[in-house]
Amino acid sequence: MNIKQSPSALPLNELLEKFSDQLAFISGPADVQIRGLSQPKEASPEDLIVLSEKSHLEEALKSASRIWLLPPALLTDRLKQENRTLLSAAQPKLLLSKIAKAYFRPTDHQIPVGSERIHPTAAIDPSARLGKDVTVGPFAVIGKECVIEDGVVIGAGAVLEPRVHLGRRCHIHPQVFIGHDCELGEECEIKPQAVLGGEGFGYATDPKTLSHHRITHFGRVVLGKRVHIGSGTTIDRGTFSDSFIDDETKIDNLCHFGHNIEIGKATIVTGGVIAAGSVKIGSGCVFGGGTCIAGHLEITDRVHIGGFSGVTKSVLQPGAYGGYPLQPLKEYLRTASSLPSLPKIRKELSQLRQHIFGKEQE
Amino acid sequence: MNIKQSPSALPLNELLEKFSDQLAFISGPADVQIRGLSQPKEASPEDLIVLSEKSHLEEALKSASRIWLLPPALLTDRLKQENRTLLSAAQPKLLLSKIAKAYFRPTDHQIPVGSERIHPTAAIDPSARLGKDVTVGPFAVIGKECVIEDGVVIGAGAVLEPRVHLGRRCHIHPQVFIGHDCELGEECEIKPQAVLGGEGFGYATDPKTLSHHRITHFGRVVLGKRVHIGSGTTIDRGTFSDSFIDDETKIDNLCHFGHNIEIGKATIVTGGVIAAGSVKIGSGCVFGGGTCIAGHLEITDRVHIGGFSGVTKSVLQPGAYGGYPLQPLKEYLRTASSLPSLPKIRKELSQLRQHIFGKEQE
Amino acid sequence: MNIKQSPSALPLNELLEKFSDQLAFISGPADVQIRGLSQPKEASPEDLIVLSEKSHLEEALKSASRIWLLPPALLTDRLKQENRTLLSAAQPKLLLSKIAKAYFRPTDHQIPVGSERIHPTAAIDPSARLGKDVTVGPFAVIGKECVIEDGVVIGAGAVLEPRVHLGRRCHIHPQVFIGHDCELGEECEIKPQAVLGGEGFGYATDPKTLSHHRITHFGRVVLGKRVHIGSGTTIDRGTFSDSFIDDETKIDNLCHFGHNIEIGKATIVTGGVIAAGSVKIGSGCVFGGGTCIAGHLEITDRVHIGGFSGVTKSVLQPGAYGGYPLQPLKEYLRTASSLPSLPKIRKELSQLRQHIFGKEQE
Repeated sequence: MNIKQSPSALPLNELLEKFSDQLAFISGPADVQIRGLSQPKEASPEDLIVLSEKSHLEEALKSASRIWLLPPALLTDRLKQENRTLLSAAQPKLLLSKIAKAYFRPTDHQIPVGSERIHPTAAIDPSARLGKDVTVGPFAVIGKECVIEDGVVIGAGAVLEPRVHLGRRCHIHPQVFIGHDCELGEECEIKPQAVLGGEGFGYATDPKTLSHHRITHFGRVVLGKRVHIGSGTTIDRGTFSDSFIDDETKIDNLCHFGHNIEIGKATIVTGGVIAAGSVKIGSGCVFGGGTCIAGHLEITDRVHIGGFSGVTKSVLQPGAYGGYPLQPLKEYLRTASSLPSLPKIRKELSQLRQHIFGKEQE
Repeated sequence: MNIKQSPSALPLNELLEKFSDQLAFISGPADVQIRGLSQPKEASPEDLIVLSEKSHLEEALKSASRIWLLPPALLTDRLKQENRTLLSAAQPKLLLSKIAKAYFRPTDHQIPVGSERIHPTAAIDPSARLGKDVTVGPFAVIGKECVIEDGVVIGAGAVLEPRVHLGRRCHIHPQVFIGHDCELGEECEIKPQAVLGGEGFGYATDPKTLSHHRITHFGRVVLGKRVHIGSGTTIDRGTFSDSFIDDETKIDNLCHFGHNIEIGKATIVTGGVIAAGSVKIGSGCVFGGGTCIAGHLEITDRVHIGGFSGVTKSVLQPGAYGGYPLQPLKEYLRTASSLPSLPKIRKELSQLRQHIFGKEQE
Repeated sequence: MNIKQSPSALPLNELLEKFSDQLAFISGPADVQIRGLSQPKEASPEDLIVLSEKSHLEEALKSASRIWLLPPALLTDRLKQENRTLLSAAQPKLLLSKIAKAYFRPTDHQIPVGSERIHPTAAIDPSARLGKDVTVGPFAVIGKECVIEDGVVIGAGAVLEPRVHLGRRCHIHPQVFIGHDCELGEECEIKPQAVLGGEGFGYATDPKTLSHHRITHFGRVVLGKRVHIGSGTTIDRGTFSDSFIDDETKIDNLCHFGHNIEIGKATIVTGGVIAAGSVKIGSGCVFGGGTCIAGHLEITDRVHIGGFSGVTKSVLQPGAYGGYPLQPLKEYLRTASSLPSLPKIRKELSQLRQHIFGKEQE
């Protein structure tokens, strides 16, 4: 853990008070200061470490950390007898993410150069409206009539075309592109070099000349609250209606979603997923990395699709799927495990046919 | 349709005159103004809507729009008797794309900040030559001896290395990179964060040390006219000769084409296609999303390759293909539909062998 | 070869002296000047061309070039009798890459605008330390306490967050993003629009609300010496420990490596490879384009994985592999060549079952 952390020392009492509904003090010294968060291997004595599974115990016992956070199931009498500060939470990893965000998340890179919140080199149109506590990095561009609500961070070199609306506390990382008229809900996080609201890939082909004429895209990209868009990911604007991604959906790096996409709430899309236009995806879905989705399909709620799958038909039943062609996951796993036997199957079938029908068989 | 459109009102007469060779007035009120383009569902009475297939009729009949554009085949007597303005074109979608471009395409985002065509912050080398009516966004970089012809738009934060040549009316969106000496024909459109003319991925490995020495790439990237390159797409420069993409070819987002690529005219490449170096692709091809193409292959004209396919051999006959390994499309579809039966095939074959040869068979 | 090359003329003697350990003069005129490097087809008489295989001879004999570099095996008496300058090296391509780097590599694009090494528009925090002979392009951002060692080139619009450390002669191309605290060894090359050190895609899901809480990532991205990262490629920072890529490893465009990745020395990763988090890859590996790698796997040294493969299990034996599911390459090639026969297998098996068991069989 080499990164500058915010507090020099966080009194345990403060932490217990803030998260009193989720965090319990169990045993050991109570009057301690937490100086950082760490994994067991690299921890200092005053770093808090988290154990969420029994298999982590062995490594933790070798750790220098004296402050442990673990679920009730791992709290043994033996551990309590040792002289460590033991804390307990039902969801230790979830709590860790909240503690990190509240106390330890590095933020000084949000003002990389100088000390002014709005870097003097940023090009901000006078008609743009900026709320309170907005941070704007060097060489960022904020177009005409943009509305930037309170607490937004806009990174260096980001480009916002006219009339972009950013909800409160959005974090737009450096070098992001957001096309004109797009709208983001509160606390969206857009990682470096994501591209929101480029024109869709729609052409009308002239049957005489075979030349392709681009269709102007009038729709926007609209994101709900707390949507995450990864680096290098591209979300195209809709043709007439908007491309829409609902609250809490998280999309990893290097994904592409074509025009008129619709995605529900709290769906997880991991790296390298490519989806053509007009795909409608439900809520609570999970997409494994490198999966491809053909255009104009519907994927209902709570569908989990394994990595490197090919989706060419709508998926209208919740459940787990995989493969190309896509199958229910259990069936796909049988297909996949049979595939290496195919040369043997081919050979044995040929032998069998020869045995039954005689030599003339191929 | 939430985006500011250019004209406040376009008289129908003006439209009929401009497209007199392709657009016919059929029936209904002739003295109308068109205030926007829309899809049926969201249209206002004065928005023009387009119907291209019979299946769209039902939705259109619920639309508020009073101005319809449709192909001759959909013009029924019943429609003509209703009090709507009916227009007809052989290719309604193609005409719509032309109407949008001529009258309704939003363009104010091309000058996102302030009112000067060439933003005062742009870094333009004095030796660069700019034509008439050139637009340059904030923080764009135009290197030494670049030649920018009339009507070009260069977006915010775009970087043009020395001696880039941009043909008339090219549209370089924000944050694009174009490497030194590259050349683009007229009316190319390069979407945000495309990368043209980076060095190719070529190494000579030292057999003693096993270290990889980069091969300097002296070739350029050369694009014909009206080539479209999507966001996040990378086209590497050639080793000695140029990487070349011919007129009217359109490449979607997040594609990669390695060094010494050659692509013919009017080929369509959809999102996420990865092609290694020295691939030669013909004219009038279509590549489905997520397809991978190995190096040093030739793909002839009018080849259509389905999405998520793997191309490892040259394709020398026009036609439709799919799968990995690649097969003619019809054969591939049979393979794909047989694949889920593989576990059953395996089991049945085993039973059959047991039946014929007895229990000792596996 | 349309690119401005550095020297107007390089005396052959100088070249022979510099590479005396690898380059031998064989026959023909010795008092010549080399004016460029070229491929045979486009060469001028004073361009050096390289032949590495016998099959290149025919094309070379049509070339205008009078200065040939070839391996000993291709040196025939007949060639020696003709009036050309013949040079010989055991590894002609490797030597060519060194000659190009030493004498012919274009570099003027490193200062695209004006003549100042550090462009006056760059935003450099006063606390950053820059070594000798550092080049910084227009609108580059160098954050607080960055350490930039001698001879580094930082391109236009690149963003370095605070405390980035760049080793000597690193070449950071335009529009690259490097997150806070990341560290690069000597002579790394980071191509335009690569993204190093974005936050990893890690979430803790609240089982009550199903909302996903982002896990703060405290690790860095650390690169060894002479690592190459392609355009559009994203390498996420680690959760607590660092994401690490060792010396001489080269990664092509549009690849993604998730948090806590570890890659050994001199591994080659070609375009479009997507790897989830916590993957550990050895040294001397080669990954074909478009391959997907699931999370938490280990791939040992000297593993070659074919293009468009899916890796879902650890690979603990060196060797060549391919396919999805992954198989040893030889076996995979048999599987792949059997796959198109699957519909025929299915049909023949059905016939056979009918023959044996009678009509009631499906």
